[in-house]
Amino acid sequence: MSEILFSFRQIGVIHSPHKEAEGTPIQPCYASGAEGTVELFQEYAEALDDIEGFERIWLLYVFNRSDGWQPKVIPFRDTNPHGIFATRAPRRPNPLGISCVRLLKADGLKLHVREIDILDGAPLLDIKPYAPQYDSYPQARAGWLDSAASPLEFADRRFEKR
Amino acid sequence: MSEILFSFRQIGVIHSPHKEAEGTPIQPCYASGAEGTVELFQEYAEALDDIEGFERIWLLYVFNRSDGWQPKVIPFRDTNPHGIFATRAPRRPNPLGISCVRLLKADGLKLHVREIDILDGAPLLDIKPYAPQYDSYPQARAGWLDSAASPLEFADRRFEKR
Repeated sequence: MSEILFSFRQIGVIHSPHKEAEGTPIQPCYASGAEGTVELFQEYAEALDDIEGFERIWLLYVFNRSDGWQPKVIPFRDTNPHGIFATRAPRRPNPLGISCVRLLKADGLKLHVREIDILDGAPLLDIKPYAPQYDSYPQARAGWLDSAASPLEFADRRFEKR
Repeated sequence: MSEILFSFRQIGVIHSPHKEAEGTPIQPCYASGAEGTVELFQEYAEALDDIEGFERIWLLYVFNRSDGWQPKVIPFRDTNPHGIFATRAPRRPNPLGISCVRLLKADGLKLHVREIDILDGAPLLDIKPYAPQYDSYPQARAGWLDSAASPLEFADRRFEKR
């Protein structure tokens, strides 16, 4: 079967203090002190109107330093392998990341954010407002993560391009 | 400036009872009774291992019936226009959707899900486990949505291809 492909455009770039995978927080909840900026391209200025009312935003971006994909990986939070779709690891069929970061300030085309777990230079594809009524399920059972064997909160180089 | 494009492959298809935008719940929280299936292509069978431990999953998919993009839209939940990035409306620069649905059962390449707010036939790009520790912020302030003027919980045809 021939693959069906969809093409998406970069709409901006994510600037972050995390320059290398090694030591980067694996999720926003482990990145409380980390601040970064999201810089949108000029044509998207008006599309940011009213974003500042939201305390948190979803960033959708490309894991541009991830290398290919694997059906099973040993994620940072465990010592056992799991199917890639049961993990948030970057080595996915489509290297798409989603992170819910805290929005500090919108300044023209620049958004200042905190709790950023994204590598510097990641291409931005979309921004969505975080809405607890749509996105928050505090009691949801979380499979292997609920009893994960590894306390790792920061990445190493396992998923990086070599 | 020339656009930078990224290409993503369809990994499966979403089957849903919502055949038309008109009347489709605008978010999973308004779709409690709606059940659907997510059908992955054969090559991703192993990548689903351990998914069943998760009560909810994120589906990342293409709004394939949305028409172009607009910097500002009047979303279903309001009567005023907002920047597209301050809404979850489909007419985005990149027509990418994320929905947190309830996982009922994994059966080989088929995932049975509930609370589905997605139109039938949407191309699937990624599945991620929902993890409250990463994704749940019940108290997050949600801008215009917190005081939205429109009680609409189901879509009409405003964002559809004509």
